[in-house]
Amino acid sequence: MDEFESLKGFYDRYPEKWVAWREIVDAVEEAAREFGFREINAPSVEPTDLFRVKSGEEIVEQTYSFEDKGGREVTLIPEQTPTRARLVQQRKDLGTPIKWFDTSKRWRYEAVQKGRDREFFQTDIDIFGVESVEADAEIIACAASIFEKLGVADAVEFKLNDRQLLDALLRAMDVDGSKDVMRVIDKKEKLSRAEFLGRLQEEGVNRDTAEEIDELTAISGEMESSLVELSDKAPDGADEAINRMHDLYDALSGYGVESMCTFDLSIVRGMDYYTGLVFEAFATESDLRALFGGGRYDELIGQFGSRDVPAIGFAFGYSTTMQLMQELGEWPDEAVSTDAYVLNVSDSVREIGLEYAMELRREGLAVETDLTGRSVGEQFGYADRINAQYTVVVGERDLNEGVVTVQDMDSGEEEQVPNDDVVEYVLDQL
Amino acid sequence: MDEFESLKGFYDRYPEKWVAWREIVDAVEEAAREFGFREINAPSVEPTDLFRVKSGEEIVEQTYSFEDKGGREVTLIPEQTPTRARLVQQRKDLGTPIKWFDTSKRWRYEAVQKGRDREFFQTDIDIFGVESVEADAEIIACAASIFEKLGVADAVEFKLNDRQLLDALLRAMDVDGSKDVMRVIDKKEKLSRAEFLGRLQEEGVNRDTAEEIDELTAISGEMESSLVELSDKAPDGADEAINRMHDLYDALSGYGVESMCTFDLSIVRGMDYYTGLVFEAFATESDLRALFGGGRYDELIGQFGSRDVPAIGFAFGYSTTMQLMQELGEWPDEAVSTDAYVLNVSDSVREIGLEYAMELRREGLAVETDLTGRSVGEQFGYADRINAQYTVVVGERDLNEGVVTVQDMDSGEEEQVPNDDVVEYVLDQL
Repeated sequence: MDEFESLKGFYDRYPEKWVAWREIVDAVEEAAREFGFREINAPSVEPTDLFRVKSGEEIVEQTYSFEDKGGREVTLIPEQTPTRARLVQQRKDLGTPIKWFDTSKRWRYEAVQKGRDREFFQTDIDIFGVESVEADAEIIACAASIFEKLGVADAVEFKLNDRQLLDALLRAMDVDGSKDVMRVIDKKEKLSRAEFLGRLQEEGVNRDTAEEIDELTAISGEMESSLVELSDKAPDGADEAINRMHDLYDALSGYGVESMCTFDLSIVRGMDYYTGLVFEAFATESDLRALFGGGRYDELIGQFGSRDVPAIGFAFGYSTTMQLMQELGEWPDEAVSTDAYVLNVSDSVREIGLEYAMELRREGLAVETDLTGRSVGEQFGYADRINAQYTVVVGERDLNEGVVTVQDMDSGEEEQVPNDDVVEYVLDQL
Repeated sequence: MDEFESLKGFYDRYPEKWVAWREIVDAVEEAAREFGFREINAPSVEPTDLFRVKSGEEIVEQTYSFEDKGGREVTLIPEQTPTRARLVQQRKDLGTPIKWFDTSKRWRYEAVQKGRDREFFQTDIDIFGVESVEADAEIIACAASIFEKLGVADAVEFKLNDRQLLDALLRAMDVDGSKDVMRVIDKKEKLSRAEFLGRLQEEGVNRDTAEEIDELTAISGEMESSLVELSDKAPDGADEAINRMHDLYDALSGYGVESMCTFDLSIVRGMDYYTGLVFEAFATESDLRALFGGGRYDELIGQFGSRDVPAIGFAFGYSTTMQLMQELGEWPDEAVSTDAYVLNVSDSVREIGLEYAMELRREGLAVETDLTGRSVGEQFGYADRINAQYTVVVGERDLNEGVVTVQDMDSGEEEQVPNDDVVEYVLDQL
């Protein structure tokens, strides 16, 4: 018979692989919890119309969208922001700040390539209902805390910009249609200087202003000095926006994460819906693409219902961070772990072995024991294969002397432990 | 503008609700981990053909099945067993026992009613590659451990039967087509005695044998005495199967869970694919339907590939257990919790407040602080709303005296703590 395979772009993660994944997901969720974000749980399937609000008709082509058996047009969620907008709109009683996180699957129907899977995990972390600089800083600090937990904070920087700042600068230069111009700035990295200037001129910007934009958007680097440079070079009229960025710098310093942040006036983050702070996390010593990005989107939630609600947040995607950790040798071991294996020397002690196993389990330890009548040697082999830290060897002769042998599987050292103290002994060792 | 709603049968779970859910999911996963089950992660969408193997063509009508943009017939998984069969088949190198768990969403397109949602969670817990009574007992013991953790073990019993035992009894009575007869037995509970006998006769069973089947399948109750009764009444030829049930009883006693188990020869569990032990968990003092069920299915995995692999397990469904816990008053509080709120008396101490918040977070505590420039009173109100256990009040006057006030939000008691000892103090209190 032919064997079945998973769909292209979908992954089977066996225990050894998932153990490592789980460590990363746990770190992200721990960071969110420590910052007081609350876990929510929401549908994986939504009416397709929900996604049209933000993404228009093209979303249908890029997603798993279909008609259900009741004739409803539905979509496997490609992101959680529209769902969150719906949740925020339907509960007017929620006090602010509304701070939510959730790790769940997302699906996109797109060409499968490295880092672009059809099914993937994201952890969304958002603050709704607050438009302060303090909220902006907390979001960055929480993101930074994730990388601290993953042990790669030194290799990551956040490039920050503010769409309002960019907008204020463009307005101060009398540039019309700032959104179109921003789209050109968003592409700047991929363009030569001549191309960049040309594209700006195509958008109706005159040559001198185009050069000025080129010069301003070249401002990047360590935040404090970049902001000084910006203040010097900026046309009049952008002071308020520059001041907000100064305030953000101060708030980031309060969190002690300012050294992970740089200012980069060319960061725009394509999507039109961002209204304030935008940021992307990059690996400093690697040519990996952005680890993830986020920003402030104060005008989006209002499109999903009757009230305007400011919002800032990010969706942590795992695949690029995983690549970074692998590059840096910080990816966790892909191996299962077990606290203890309870080995029965003979069938006659099986019941006593089970009692030890159950007592150890009641202490929260991960414990296995024989299910197949294996020999002592085979059981040791199995204990080794599941990376048991300790093997509790339950044998009749030992029991007659009132002891049980506990073997440290790492060092090979054995200890004869009074049979009433076995659980305590193992707990002490771990 | 019209507001959006979730699809019928899909649920939005806000933090207060999800906190309680999370506790239950965690308990189930803890039990699985303690028994040495390993977490896997697998696709939520599979080729529809995968489900046809076990469930035939009708599965298409009962699921979210559709054609993807590449013309593939795909299905949102209604259960994980076919996927697990695929995973076991595609890795011939896996050593046994293969012990897997995973909590994930499942989808069924069916009439929405209480306990029958279109999107729902299940935790699958299985042992593959072992056909021993010890594996059967471990599965029951693990399931029992879940209810212990949930604090409702006293209110739950497992009704056990063995399809091979039933089969052996029927064969010993010269009954042909034991599967059709089992299907009648499966319905016994809903039939009058006359109907039951009539249905059996329709399946070609003679009147005397039908009465004998009625008598045998009435055997139920405490395991040891039921097995004695069965041995007395059983026709010759079922000894081996009865002995296996005796062995299972002994193994369950080893785990100390035999008192939660009863024997019930009428438990069949509809689906044809079970081959040995079958069990259902029931609430003893409630008219709730079965909490969940499971069993041994040694012939199923072989249908998905080139090798036969014995298997036993269950899918823990949450909705009925949730109803039971609510009935018993054991459902967790639906309220968020927070270890500490850091309150800034004035803007001038915001940065110091942030430092305390970050130090507490680094200790793994869930901590919030002000994001909106609220007054002291408003901040206390917020701390109360998020159920902060302690509020760390950072004020300039206190700081000048080298102290910080920590308020126990439950008792209202305040303590002035030297400003270097704040983190330690809060950790000690918690």
